[in-house]
Amino acid sequence: MDIKKILVTGRMFKELEKLALLDTKREYLFLPEAEVRPNHFEWADGYVAFKPTESFHFGKLRWVHALGAGVDAFLHNREWKEDVLLTRTVGSFGLKIGQYCLSYMLADVQHHKKFQQNQTERHWQPSQQLLLQQLSIVVFGTGTIGSEIAKMLKSFGVTVYGISSSGASNPHFDKVVPINEANSLLAEADWVINTLPLTPTTDKLFGKHLFACLQGASFINVGRGASVDETALLEAIDRGQVRRAVLDVFREEPLPAESPLWSHPNVTITPHISAVTGVDEAMDGLLAVLEDMDSGQERIRHSVDVSRGY
Amino acid sequence: MDIKKILVTGRMFKELEKLALLDTKREYLFLPEAEVRPNHFEWADGYVAFKPTESFHFGKLRWVHALGAGVDAFLHNREWKEDVLLTRTVGSFGLKIGQYCLSYMLADVQHHKKFQQNQTERHWQPSQQLLLQQLSIVVFGTGTIGSEIAKMLKSFGVTVYGISSSGASNPHFDKVVPINEANSLLAEADWVINTLPLTPTTDKLFGKHLFACLQGASFINVGRGASVDETALLEAIDRGQVRRAVLDVFREEPLPAESPLWSHPNVTITPHISAVTGVDEAMDGLLAVLEDMDSGQERIRHSVDVSRGY
Repeated sequence: MDIKKILVTGRMFKELEKLALLDTKREYLFLPEAEVRPNHFEWADGYVAFKPTESFHFGKLRWVHALGAGVDAFLHNREWKEDVLLTRTVGSFGLKIGQYCLSYMLADVQHHKKFQQNQTERHWQPSQQLLLQQLSIVVFGTGTIGSEIAKMLKSFGVTVYGISSSGASNPHFDKVVPINEANSLLAEADWVINTLPLTPTTDKLFGKHLFACLQGASFINVGRGASVDETALLEAIDRGQVRRAVLDVFREEPLPAESPLWSHPNVTITPHISAVTGVDEAMDGLLAVLEDMDSGQERIRHSVDVSRGY
Repeated sequence: MDIKKILVTGRMFKELEKLALLDTKREYLFLPEAEVRPNHFEWADGYVAFKPTESFHFGKLRWVHALGAGVDAFLHNREWKEDVLLTRTVGSFGLKIGQYCLSYMLADVQHHKKFQQNQTERHWQPSQQLLLQQLSIVVFGTGTIGSEIAKMLKSFGVTVYGISSSGASNPHFDKVVPINEANSLLAEADWVINTLPLTPTTDKLFGKHLFACLQGASFINVGRGASVDETALLEAIDRGQVRRAVLDVFREEPLPAESPLWSHPNVTITPHISAVTGVDEAMDGLLAVLEDMDSGQERIRHSVDVSRGY
């Protein structure tokens, strides 16, 4: 694939400027988002960013590279131009998200909140914690991120079930089933973790119907906010179907100040930080794609199957 | 070793009553602490408890079994009677303490407190976390508990140094040194974890002099409270030598309401819960010792070297 002129924009455009030094075969243009005009897409055949600018159109583009792991900003509600290659960063997201999830699971089993409260009251009240090996977890998504989480949790003896569209088995999970066979696993789960990309299938997947299968599980969302019906989630918490929710992603980000999620005592809000792309891994991913292009690989690393959305 | 009459007392005496069913060769007496009288020690040749009762004296005892991992309640400031065997529970303390430590390390690198504060203010402010592999940790004590912590942290790529009296190498640590060679490791440490038993050598080990070697490390105490000079610790925090302290054990327990530790913003207090002995593991440990006695083993499992104090 012969790409010659690359437009790089968005939050990381400055840090990526050294690309031009590493890859002298191509022309590069590094711009902040606000300075990207429609005519830039008549110049560039490659586009590198976290998301499309407002001025984005396909123009002469034949390659788009997403700096994040999720490509829904490019694909969701957009008709993709068939011959445009879409690639993405496949970095240490699984590791980062795994440690994010583990941190909240451990804080919960170790009663951090209760001891913190007791401390403010100078109150000494021992209570016994669970060990991770006593927990049963259901992870939605068995791709790189889901597998990395499962692998980490398995190393602590956690029972880890996976949900995927195919239900194909995966060595990091005790069992993988398709969603329509998940009811009994969901009923037993102590934690349910969503790592799925946003696609038409996963849009509002976590709604009234799914939450009704839970019997007091805690819910972590590190996938995409639009996969959750936030009203249904709050109702599920109030019904006791969901014990608590740890949410890193939201339908609208930043989460609007008027959202009732902010003040719910059983909801933990983090500002979409569970897997921030680092400059080094962004660069590594980009260089891997460029290398495959240069060496004429048929299957370019980190390519997205646009029809599946990941 | 021929033990015939065993007195079992303390918090777990009820749960341990089934011992009498499992071991019909011996006579057992199960009593709450308050009911143990001096003359019981003229009857019993074996004593099983977390600590000595007020009425404790050696009497006819030839065996004492500590239900906890630490035996300082028996040995500290007491002259041990030479021919009395002391054994202890060696259970999943390493696993429990490891998960306790990891929970606070992860909560810290994942900015739990900051996000919690931001949530109360409905404030969306992303910040990037460290991964565990970026941390360097010094663990005091390379026995079962220290090794288990090291093993767990190594699986996340953490750099783990150990401090032991001998400095003997241990496969779970990147390096083990004796305390007098630890200065440069302590200066670089992100976290320092104390797992040492209380002995004359470790009494107030964590004082002014040791804290002065730290350059902003966080400190976790899961060993014994008396190993820490609490006043020196607070001064070290105020000087920035210690960034924060997570304390599970204290010189006096329960921690007195007037202690300044309760209200210090950089101190986390938990009520001696990092490794509570479970009934199953207490039973397993006891049965192992009894089995070795019955089969005439020379080296009885879980024996304590009284001269070393662990």
